Amino acid sequence: MKKAIVLLSGGLDSATILYYAKTQGFDPYCLVFDYGQRHNKEIEQAKKIAKNAKCSFEVMKISLPWQGSALLNKKMPLPNRKLFKANDIPSTYVPARNIIFLSFAVSFSEAIGASAVFIGANAIDYSGYPDCRPDFFKAYEKVLAKGLKSGIQKKPIKIITPLIDKTKAQIIAMGLELKVPYHLTWSCYRGGARPCGKCESCSLRQKGFDTLGIVDPLLLNLN
Amino acid sequence: MKKAIVLLSGGLDSATILYYAKTQGFDPYCLVFDYGQRHNKEIEQAKKIAKNAKCSFEVMKISLPWQGSALLNKKMPLPNRKLFKANDIPSTYVPARNIIFLSFAVSFSEAIGASAVFIGANAIDYSGYPDCRPDFFKAYEKVLAKGLKSGIQKKPIKIITPLIDKTKAQIIAMGLELKVPYHLTWSCYRGGARPCGKCESCSLRQKGFDTLGIVDPLLLNLN
Repeated sequence: MKKAIVLLSGGLDSATILYYAKTQGFDPYCLVFDYGQRHNKEIEQAKKIAKNAKCSFEVMKISLPWQGSALLNKKMPLPNRKLFKANDIPSTYVPARNIIFLSFAVSFSEAIGASAVFIGANAIDYSGYPDCRPDFFKAYEKVLAKGLKSGIQKKPIKIITPLIDKTKAQIIAMGLELKVPYHLTWSCYRGGARPCGKCESCSLRQKGFDTLGIVDPLLLNLN
Repeated sequence: MKKAIVLLSGGLDSATILYYAKTQGFDPYCLVFDYGQRHNKEIEQAKKIAKNAKCSFEVMKISLPWQGSALLNKKMPLPNRKLFKANDIPSTYVPARNIIFLSFAVSFSEAIGASAVFIGANAIDYSGYPDCRPDFFKAYEKVLAKGLKSGIQKKPIKIITPLIDKTKAQIIAMGLELKVPYHLTWSCYRGGARPCGKCESCSLRQKGFDTLGIVDPLLLNLN
């Protein structure tokens, strides 16, 4: 089986791509980041999801002492918002987050001979972060062709973004087919006992389930 | 003054660019990586160099549990070699090392409003690592234009590689003009009490000083 690294956050999107990668003939190795996020509850959920999928996982602890994001700095207010407005990047943006995550993922890939990195980025129902857009991933693949041993040996690592052009409802519908354990996923940026229902991440998640007319399995699980 | 991040390893090249950045009107913030390198002695030297240059520094501790390099795995032999042969990448190559280092540097840059990252990569007297070549840095800058807030706001962070096309002798000559404290720099991959004189890093360094017909100030300092 082909090896792949799956960036797993504990959220809905990355859980979906983990199960998707398995259906595509990949043996997934999950990479989870503990980067000082205020909703560090997602890390525990990521571990549960990896175990549920019977995949190994590695938790990488990294520090971003320069912060620059409401997702890292608990003194900054978290915005409540429903919709992304074009070119308005919210305060939850973490500078270079996906650039950092991918850099470790490709290092891991090359060391174990994996041919692909799966990332659950989405550029439709998203927060407007530039490192979730197709142009970014295309540019990143060119870096891998030039800057890695595998790249100059003409076996470049692929960045696979199965959700990039899907709505949240389409992602959930895909995941339900794949039997993704959505009751184990966590999206809320506030990371409390229950999802706050107001942050951008909760809003996007709720929009997806509402569109499909079903109740979020996480909420059923909490009741 | 314009802020810049300088990737500082404790070696000869990065010390040179730190002093060079200061002459170019930049206020440098040094970023030093503790990534499990067997020659971790260079980290202490990097701190001394930053202090000598009166610059602040941040030491980032990162873990690469997948290793895949003789520079990380003390059980692997370190090669003794004089010259790089085209497309022969030595076992000291660390998968995605500069990709990882730059990813933190650009996150730091964006968080503090720095406009540039200086890196002492060199593609002439070097070990053949693909992430030290001009094509790689060009591709990386395109990622920053697409994947960072500063990039899409048309103020992309620049990657500055002042040494990319210089011989080791030219780098040292440049550094001597800038009064770089070469006696504080450390290059040897073995990281013992004295440089081994045999590893690729020692060989490249010695070639530079030999070409200029001068004795390495580090060796004078050790005597």
